[in-house]
Amino acid sequence: MRLLHLLDKQKASAAAITHLPNVRYLSGFTGSNAILLISGRGATLYTDPRYDIQAHQEVQCSVRIVRGPLWPEVAREIAKRRLPTVALEADKIPHANWLEVAKLLGKGVKLRPMQGVVESLRSVKSPGEIATIRQSVQVNSKALAQTLKRVKPGMTELAVAADLDYRMRGLGAEAAAFETIVASGVRSALPHARPTAEKLKNDQVLLIDMGASLDGYASDMTRVVHLGKPGARIRGLYEAVLEAQLQAIAAVKPGASCADVDEAARGALRKRKLDRYFTHSTGHGLGLEIHEIPRIGAKVETVLQPGMVITIEPGVYVEDFGGVRIEDTVLVTETGVEVLTPTTKEFVVLAS
Amino acid sequence: MRLLHLLDKQKASAAAITHLPNVRYLSGFTGSNAILLISGRGATLYTDPRYDIQAHQEVQCSVRIVRGPLWPEVAREIAKRRLPTVALEADKIPHANWLEVAKLLGKGVKLRPMQGVVESLRSVKSPGEIATIRQSVQVNSKALAQTLKRVKPGMTELAVAADLDYRMRGLGAEAAAFETIVASGVRSALPHARPTAEKLKNDQVLLIDMGASLDGYASDMTRVVHLGKPGARIRGLYEAVLEAQLQAIAAVKPGASCADVDEAARGALRKRKLDRYFTHSTGHGLGLEIHEIPRIGAKVETVLQPGMVITIEPGVYVEDFGGVRIEDTVLVTETGVEVLTPTTKEFVVLAS
Repeated sequence: MRLLHLLDKQKASAAAITHLPNVRYLSGFTGSNAILLISGRGATLYTDPRYDIQAHQEVQCSVRIVRGPLWPEVAREIAKRRLPTVALEADKIPHANWLEVAKLLGKGVKLRPMQGVVESLRSVKSPGEIATIRQSVQVNSKALAQTLKRVKPGMTELAVAADLDYRMRGLGAEAAAFETIVASGVRSALPHARPTAEKLKNDQVLLIDMGASLDGYASDMTRVVHLGKPGARIRGLYEAVLEAQLQAIAAVKPGASCADVDEAARGALRKRKLDRYFTHSTGHGLGLEIHEIPRIGAKVETVLQPGMVITIEPGVYVEDFGGVRIEDTVLVTETGVEVLTPTTKEFVVLAS
Repeated sequence: MRLLHLLDKQKASAAAITHLPNVRYLSGFTGSNAILLISGRGATLYTDPRYDIQAHQEVQCSVRIVRGPLWPEVAREIAKRRLPTVALEADKIPHANWLEVAKLLGKGVKLRPMQGVVESLRSVKSPGEIATIRQSVQVNSKALAQTLKRVKPGMTELAVAADLDYRMRGLGAEAAAFETIVASGVRSALPHARPTAEKLKNDQVLLIDMGASLDGYASDMTRVVHLGKPGARIRGLYEAVLEAQLQAIAAVKPGASCADVDEAARGALRKRKLDRYFTHSTGHGLGLEIHEIPRIGAKVETVLQPGMVITIEPGVYVEDFGGVRIEDTVLVTETGVEVLTPTTKEFVVLAS
């Protein structure tokens, strides 16, 4: 097991995993309350009676059902197994819990902070995970296509978002991977706009950022369409962002750094003096969480590896005018990149 | 400001709030990345450039937009204001962050753990919050009524859940407050069942646990209906749970403890020898989060106060047979209780 090998390198004899996406990745358990204890003697999942039946269905390793708080039981087992050092996810476990665990375990057991270890394993997807993400991406794109057929002036942003989410569910997603963003007109200049009761109007841009969660795996896509014929200024922004996005995708390959990919997008916008409107990173990993490592940003020296799944999503946001972002989910392959998102990147004009 | 008064009691000269529902409660900010620094000199919200426009729209206090990590900026301000003690939410802030903050601040500043302080303020709702929760409850109940008209054998649990969520959105909710539970037949015995592709059949129970999130505020309701005429055993369970729920509601009043209310439900089930099938607490507070304090459980000595909004939701779960849970959102009033949920608690039979 690769995790045990990594623990060995960290000089920890065991790990108690509490971050739920990491628990799910390592054990298969999808419930909302669990600690996964891993040592050379095997793995044990601790959860509460609500998940008794479900845990036994989902998990291969041994399961312990605990009434009340889980940590005292886990501590008892650590003492029993005489584990001298236990790694905890220091960037996830609340400070108060760390202190509580230290107290429960006493001076005989050393706690070691562990950060990004499971996340690093998760950043390179298995063929099975990639297959699930492909399905998630397909559902996402199909839902957008279905909804766009119904979009017209007078609909609210909220109604568009509700329709997108409903269609993703109908196509097999268990949920939206994040709160769907639907922003029309000048509101598209807010990169993280929540949909409002604002009604769509003619001669407006419409930005949609959406993702499906399918069997736990996220997809992520942004498209900008226009209600009625777009003017020269918005067309100019669209072309600039699309060029930046294509340049960044072309830079994705094994061995390239995240900073290289980010610079490909940022440099393309710089040439057009638009880089100051590009206020976020170029992308991020995704999988069991919508935001995973690696972040595709300036100064991120992480090197891309085959099997990584990331977003490429440059954008420009001009206050009181509007914003454009174009985002695909892409796979790092052995030789370069495969764009998973099938949706067109032409500037789609909806008849008004 | 009540929070400052509480800080004073904790001998802290400032607090740096990181738990986002607490940030929202105190400042109005709804974004996903923020630290709220509060001291005698006022409050400052720290967030990143994605939220530049939004933060200024939402927040009354001063706003600082930070590129990159927020903590170094907050630490600089703490040093500048010469704040000797800063309270952090120890049960929320990851251990690694606590250490990082301690290092940034150096030995001149003492960190004090703070737990449940803002949560305690939040547990008693203002008239404005209660009005929003009323709306959330109404949307929740209306959506259930709309969906139940369409439920019939052959529909999948997932389709029912998607329909409920869509209708909540159509009625004004921004989202479901949690993953809607739809469990049919024996799956109703799993208290936290996720909806599956299982098709509804005749002569089956159908358990629906749903909540709306409206302007950030949650509602929560569970109802059990039957497809076709229910048999004696399931009717017996239904009557027992309903009686327990009504007893618990009758026990809700200012001055009663959470344990009193829990015992009212548990005792009613004990009389029928069903208490061993009631494997969770009787309820919980709700508001900006779906699970807030107080927990309505055995041994919880917290005393109910006017303005608290809680759920009352006893249930019984019989493996390989089925489960019944009946849940309302209720308000503690000056004199007793107001059941906010308007949905009938008769055992509804859907024609099959």
